[in-house]
Amino acid sequence: MHPADYLCAMQLTAKEIARLLGGALEGDGDVVVDRPGKIEEGGEGALTFLGNPKYEVYAYSIRSSILLANKSFEPAKPVAASALIRVDDVYEAVRQLLEKFGASERSNGQVSERSFVHPSAKLGLNVSVGTYTVIEEGASIGNETILSPQVFIGKNVEIGNGCVLYPGVKVYHGCKIGDRCVLHANVVVGGDGFGFAPQSDGSYRKIPQIGNVVIEDDVEIGANTTVDRATMNSTIIRTGAKLDNLIMVAHNAEVGENTVIAAQAGIAGSTKIGRQCRIGGQAGFVGHIDVADGTQVQAQSGIAAAIKEPNQAFYGSPAIAYKDYLKSYAVFKKLPDLYRKVNELEKKLRDK
Amino acid sequence: MHPADYLCAMQLTAKEIARLLGGALEGDGDVVVDRPGKIEEGGEGALTFLGNPKYEVYAYSIRSSILLANKSFEPAKPVAASALIRVDDVYEAVRQLLEKFGASERSNGQVSERSFVHPSAKLGLNVSVGTYTVIEEGASIGNETILSPQVFIGKNVEIGNGCVLYPGVKVYHGCKIGDRCVLHANVVVGGDGFGFAPQSDGSYRKIPQIGNVVIEDDVEIGANTTVDRATMNSTIIRTGAKLDNLIMVAHNAEVGENTVIAAQAGIAGSTKIGRQCRIGGQAGFVGHIDVADGTQVQAQSGIAAAIKEPNQAFYGSPAIAYKDYLKSYAVFKKLPDLYRKVNELEKKLRDK
Amino acid sequence: MHPADYLCAMQLTAKEIARLLGGALEGDGDVVVDRPGKIEEGGEGALTFLGNPKYEVYAYSIRSSILLANKSFEPAKPVAASALIRVDDVYEAVRQLLEKFGASERSNGQVSERSFVHPSAKLGLNVSVGTYTVIEEGASIGNETILSPQVFIGKNVEIGNGCVLYPGVKVYHGCKIGDRCVLHANVVVGGDGFGFAPQSDGSYRKIPQIGNVVIEDDVEIGANTTVDRATMNSTIIRTGAKLDNLIMVAHNAEVGENTVIAAQAGIAGSTKIGRQCRIGGQAGFVGHIDVADGTQVQAQSGIAAAIKEPNQAFYGSPAIAYKDYLKSYAVFKKLPDLYRKVNELEKKLRDK
Repeated sequence: MHPADYLCAMQLTAKEIARLLGGALEGDGDVVVDRPGKIEEGGEGALTFLGNPKYEVYAYSIRSSILLANKSFEPAKPVAASALIRVDDVYEAVRQLLEKFGASERSNGQVSERSFVHPSAKLGLNVSVGTYTVIEEGASIGNETILSPQVFIGKNVEIGNGCVLYPGVKVYHGCKIGDRCVLHANVVVGGDGFGFAPQSDGSYRKIPQIGNVVIEDDVEIGANTTVDRATMNSTIIRTGAKLDNLIMVAHNAEVGENTVIAAQAGIAGSTKIGRQCRIGGQAGFVGHIDVADGTQVQAQSGIAAAIKEPNQAFYGSPAIAYKDYLKSYAVFKKLPDLYRKVNELEKKLRDK
Repeated sequence: MHPADYLCAMQLTAKEIARLLGGALEGDGDVVVDRPGKIEEGGEGALTFLGNPKYEVYAYSIRSSILLANKSFEPAKPVAASALIRVDDVYEAVRQLLEKFGASERSNGQVSERSFVHPSAKLGLNVSVGTYTVIEEGASIGNETILSPQVFIGKNVEIGNGCVLYPGVKVYHGCKIGDRCVLHANVVVGGDGFGFAPQSDGSYRKIPQIGNVVIEDDVEIGANTTVDRATMNSTIIRTGAKLDNLIMVAHNAEVGENTVIAAQAGIAGSTKIGRQCRIGGQAGFVGHIDVADGTQVQAQSGIAAAIKEPNQAFYGSPAIAYKDYLKSYAVFKKLPDLYRKVNELEKKLRDK
Repeated sequence: MHPADYLCAMQLTAKEIARLLGGALEGDGDVVVDRPGKIEEGGEGALTFLGNPKYEVYAYSIRSSILLANKSFEPAKPVAASALIRVDDVYEAVRQLLEKFGASERSNGQVSERSFVHPSAKLGLNVSVGTYTVIEEGASIGNETILSPQVFIGKNVEIGNGCVLYPGVKVYHGCKIGDRCVLHANVVVGGDGFGFAPQSDGSYRKIPQIGNVVIEDDVEIGANTTVDRATMNSTIIRTGAKLDNLIMVAHNAEVGENTVIAAQAGIAGSTKIGRQCRIGGQAGFVGHIDVADGTQVQAQSGIAAAIKEPNQAFYGSPAIAYKDYLKSYAVFKKLPDLYRKVNELEKKLRDK
């Protein structure tokens, strides 16, 4: 099956697309497209787009049916597409088209006979419950929410309206998820925080983790990410936060509103990340610190202390100011030379 | 549902708590608490505690019903709580309270009708088998062990007494788990080790992995962690080891007794970590090395060679002695200055 | 159960093994082995092998029934084993033995009554469908393929012949998997790529991910690894690639033929890794770059820019040439000395 099959019934003329996007049309308004395509591959029926200027060469050399470009694009030569549509923001235009034509998940309201729903659980209107999914005692699921197959919803869990939980998601008892959240396959919400008290004989005793996880609205969490429950109170993911795959959010941590975290990053216990932060992949945060709003952290960096000033960028492990790290690292690469030079200077001075 | 609801029936007076903890009581012995609370939030009915001295200011300014503190705490002003209880170790006291009042997992001894238990599998006394859980041929499960929903137990797996396996745990054939182990959701035990033999045409042929995984007693493993089976013999997690989420333990590795490993760390094949080690998050270990008892590894560090001396701390990638890394990194931050200085010295010397 | 029990019916004489491997036999050709063993442990009935020369001492001191060694091995003393078999490549010989005697997964062709197979799904010949596995509408599964328990196969997924999907694997709609692929427990294929468009109010809107994942033939993927679906077109894992556990492959990325990636590495969106690369554990790749064939990346390194020259090795974050990193890092360790020296030089020069 061709991936473009997901663009259900996308059969649109250049005129229709131009109208839909509020774009300026040049060329053949009647040409029809049936799929998106890469500008470097093109093809008849393909809707291609030019975002990154380094691909401009293909706009002239590779044929496609429609080329989308920014208004600022001034073709140096005739474009190879049958029609050119220019819009304010080509990426936003593509997003709109994908949203319009992509198959979005809609609840079919079916509760599989091969699921287990505890009699005390409350299901809202038009909830889907997939095959082999389990909903335990006292849980409540909001309207239009989709629980895919093989999902586990623990006791007294509350999930809001319009959520999608993909196959294999596990939500432990007492956790709360708001509206319009998306949790991808095998995400784990509410596992015990990692808390152990050292004993005099060298062993550790478990500190019971009796808090929960609260995920607010419009949060998306990628596959196999884990968010641990709090020791007391709540681990919190604020409204609009987006977490990629394989991320670790430890007990009592908090992720601020509209903060975006790339894959495999880790946030240790009780650390509070502010709003509108952007965290790179494989970055790590030590526990018990506050991180200011708008902080940007480069991939693989390690934040080892609180960040008080907002909107700053960091790099390195332990992380320092982004630009400082780059400057220091530029010298790091020359260290063998520097070392040699210092030894020569020392020798010269000694010889004088 | 308020997370404090998990503190089932916690309705205790200051006197009762003081007696329970063997602590010294000041103030109103009859005040009642019904939940734990943060010292900076307090509130009527809240039991708060002062561990970290940087929160001392709240002890005077935020009202709560009971404040727990260390014996060494000498209030500079009157505390805002109705009662103050002083104990030898406030963290241990909190742990005891949580243990006493937290809802601990107890087996209800029910085997779900919607589970699959092979006729040849042996279940001990009072074992719980959750909905849609699978127990294959020849497996044996010890007394009081809880298998949550959607767990998979492969052929001939042996699990001891009093274990809890959370939803989605997968244990491959032939692996062994001791007593009182806790495996969080979607943990995978016994997947094939990553072994492939390069062939002359550039492809790789799989080396069959015919060993197993042995997890001893009192081990806890966090959500989505993976422990691979050995090529031959066993990958071993020793008694009392605690592993956080999203950790990788490769084939034929060994984790020593009471060693604690933070999230997203990785241990490559055949590496043997000693006892009582503390490993930071996102740290990595190269394969085929021995790491001495009591080793401490800073988060994100990379251990690239054997560690022979016990109780040493390491940092960096590749890791060096912790203090040496900090000293070198302090200079790293000044490298642009150092570079400039050396060039100036060179010039000066040339000009002389 | 002893792990060696997996070597079903391994009861072979030294003569038989020598013939099987085309090796040269010395000593007692009639001695029988029934299990593999470690050279440092040996024992009667154990087949041990000497690969790494640092274990040579055990060849003389620890008794076993058969010792396998390379042809180049010239014993300095009599070996302690009853028989010595010398072969061209001891690792390849061990692999062959494991392959011959290890229990390999073979489909039993049973479709569990406790599985859900949509009537429109197509199953090839002799397909196994495990307990509580779900196969959605329009999916097709090739001959001899094994779907273990609790697997999820989404709509219109295509899986080839002779694959093994271990428990808990989740494959989202529209993804394609070739022949002879192995996916370990809880792998997620086809979760949405991490694409969000920033809005003027600081929030993010999801960019629908309408592409898929294509996994070619002979690919193995370790437990809990995630491969995200493309925004448009396909995320691709080429023939013969081997991915370890807990790896992240982001949307529109491509992993080349016979490329091997160790655990917890991450590849950001649209990055294309060439053929025959070897990527260390916890390494990371920035998005939108091409990485040349035969590239080697040291564990924990961060590849921040395109790599054009093939067969080069890299280290560091951001990564530089492997040897250069080692040289710079050698000076990094001496930075406190260097710093002191430069200050002394400065002082001397000032004092002159």
